[in-house]
Amino acid sequence: MRSLNVALDARSYPIHIGAGLLARSDLIHAHLQAPLAAIVSNETVAPLYLAAVSQALREKGVRVTEIVLPDGETHKNWQTLNRIYDTLLENRCERATSIIALGGGVIGDLAGFAAATYQRGVPFIQLPTTLLAQVDSSVGGKTGINHPLGKNMIGAFHQPRLVLADTDSLKTLPDRELRAGLAEVIKYGLIRDPAFFEWIESNIDRLVVRETEALMVAIERSCANKAEIVAEDERESGVRALLNLGHTFGHAIEAGLGFGNWLHGEAVAAGTVMAAELSRRLGWLSDAEFARTSALLRRAGLPTQGPALGADRYLDLMALDKKVTSGKMRLVLLRKIGEGAISAEAGAGDVRAAIEACCNG
Amino acid sequence: MRSLNVALDARSYPIHIGAGLLARSDLIHAHLQAPLAAIVSNETVAPLYLAAVSQALREKGVRVTEIVLPDGETHKNWQTLNRIYDTLLENRCERATSIIALGGGVIGDLAGFAAATYQRGVPFIQLPTTLLAQVDSSVGGKTGINHPLGKNMIGAFHQPRLVLADTDSLKTLPDRELRAGLAEVIKYGLIRDPAFFEWIESNIDRLVVRETEALMVAIERSCANKAEIVAEDERESGVRALLNLGHTFGHAIEAGLGFGNWLHGEAVAAGTVMAAELSRRLGWLSDAEFARTSALLRRAGLPTQGPALGADRYLDLMALDKKVTSGKMRLVLLRKIGEGAISAEAGAGDVRAAIEACCNG
Repeated sequence: MRSLNVALDARSYPIHIGAGLLARSDLIHAHLQAPLAAIVSNETVAPLYLAAVSQALREKGVRVTEIVLPDGETHKNWQTLNRIYDTLLENRCERATSIIALGGGVIGDLAGFAAATYQRGVPFIQLPTTLLAQVDSSVGGKTGINHPLGKNMIGAFHQPRLVLADTDSLKTLPDRELRAGLAEVIKYGLIRDPAFFEWIESNIDRLVVRETEALMVAIERSCANKAEIVAEDERESGVRALLNLGHTFGHAIEAGLGFGNWLHGEAVAAGTVMAAELSRRLGWLSDAEFARTSALLRRAGLPTQGPALGADRYLDLMALDKKVTSGKMRLVLLRKIGEGAISAEAGAGDVRAAIEACCNG
Repeated sequence: MRSLNVALDARSYPIHIGAGLLARSDLIHAHLQAPLAAIVSNETVAPLYLAAVSQALREKGVRVTEIVLPDGETHKNWQTLNRIYDTLLENRCERATSIIALGGGVIGDLAGFAAATYQRGVPFIQLPTTLLAQVDSSVGGKTGINHPLGKNMIGAFHQPRLVLADTDSLKTLPDRELRAGLAEVIKYGLIRDPAFFEWIESNIDRLVVRETEALMVAIERSCANKAEIVAEDERESGVRALLNLGHTFGHAIEAGLGFGNWLHGEAVAAGTVMAAELSRRLGWLSDAEFARTSALLRRAGLPTQGPALGADRYLDLMALDKKVTSGKMRLVLLRKIGEGAISAEAGAGDVRAAIEACCNG
């Protein structure tokens, strides 16, 4: 087991990474405020792990409520969130009841938002079971749901008290989801860690075939990068926005196709290529660096071209993004590999050209 | 105009109290993060004040979105909240858009929760137009909505950046609502300010007929008490719970009759008499002090008996309250007039007897 700390003063918390951690009810139990827990999972993950996690906690005297939701981004909405509230209330869960997310990014976002808002906030624990959740969404306290008019438009910052990333759970992950997670791993290299980017270039084949040791390195290094950024800028008033590399383009893809058609990481991959292309047009990224970026995403099995929504539709959807300030679109671009920058420098014409250069059809 | 400060470090904010403050767009404008605002009001208040407030802000170059909701506690729910989100998104409101609540406690709670959660949090301003909102709910950052299984079960702490209490708006307030606000005014005297309680006893007739100077004193002194408590315990881990005097009983009344039948302040008044009766049974409050408490609420035109729901139903609904910890019911009781205490000392038998002694029929 390897451990990191997210340094947020009184709200600091550990991230533990390793094989078999879902069985470590001692680690979970130590972070409960009271012997009361509600585990939120989905219909895909629950049959694999829920009974074991619940049982281990019950053996420690914890009263456990189980909440199993339908799987997928299309369910990250009010209706599903209300199912969580209904069950919490029907089971008389209290302010001291810890909500535990057992699943991927969607479950973490939904359960985390429920934890942020049930009785004005209850303790929260993350047990991420997908690569994307382990390297990104489970760390840093962003929670929320989608609105028909935009992704993650409703939400809250609510830090977990513990993140347990069990690498064994990646063994059951579909290939497509593993690859989606790699998009976020590559992101850390691109925005702030050039040595990590090179390490990924050297090890991408080991990651794709799920070599445990390589995955451990990738998860630990990703979480270390994320923990540093979150400690510096919890509420995304500055540097944290770098984590959104490819996300403004990516959200447009997800919304344009309808949530759930492309996985979030797939949309981020194509969006990252668009951001790299735009950086190249601004004279920031060299042709060679653009090619390395695109090639690495391709070797990870990820799309490097966006769907043919038409540039107008992209621009329209991007204007709805949370990163818009006073009508001006701020985008995360790359000065070079390993150095991201938040910029409103690109004109609409450049953005349009970058989209058109990176779309199918 | 009189001004107070809620001391919360970087999130400190002023409360201004006085006649004609809704016209002071300069005060509002100074607290906007950007020249972008969404004003949330209801069908009763909007025709009286919304056009003037909007127009004054527009004259200062602010882009204003107006959101008018149906009036009443029955609308403090998901459906109404979603109308706010829909309108914010349709109008492309941003992270820098300030949400301004113009109305009573329901509007403040709804708009505040929208501000806490839209794009993970936007700036918030309170323009309370009822006595209850001016003396209590607009100060302190509690926001939220009701769930069919319990009042205020979904919510967040989100402090406003400014509270403007325009005493002129009390002139149009229905009698019943004015009296409901007096229940919370009397509360401050009971839990921590015996001199204020005596002042209210001497001035209750002036308050009931809305003498401006008396109302100013009542609002200022109430806000001063609330500001001190909130500065000491923002998240209600301790002393802030005293503000819930009568509220656990009161929530049971509201839920038991269906939200909106009794006004919140009316339910709190009857609940306060139950809490006082329970305090008397525990030997804390003297018979004379109980009589003074009950008499003052009666002179304010408030109910001092709860509806005949049956004690079992009361106890059942009270068990759902947020103040329950590990199944144990903590109640706010009175050691004497001017000194509240949070206690789990009362047994179920005592609670039942207090309810039965203070119910009609």
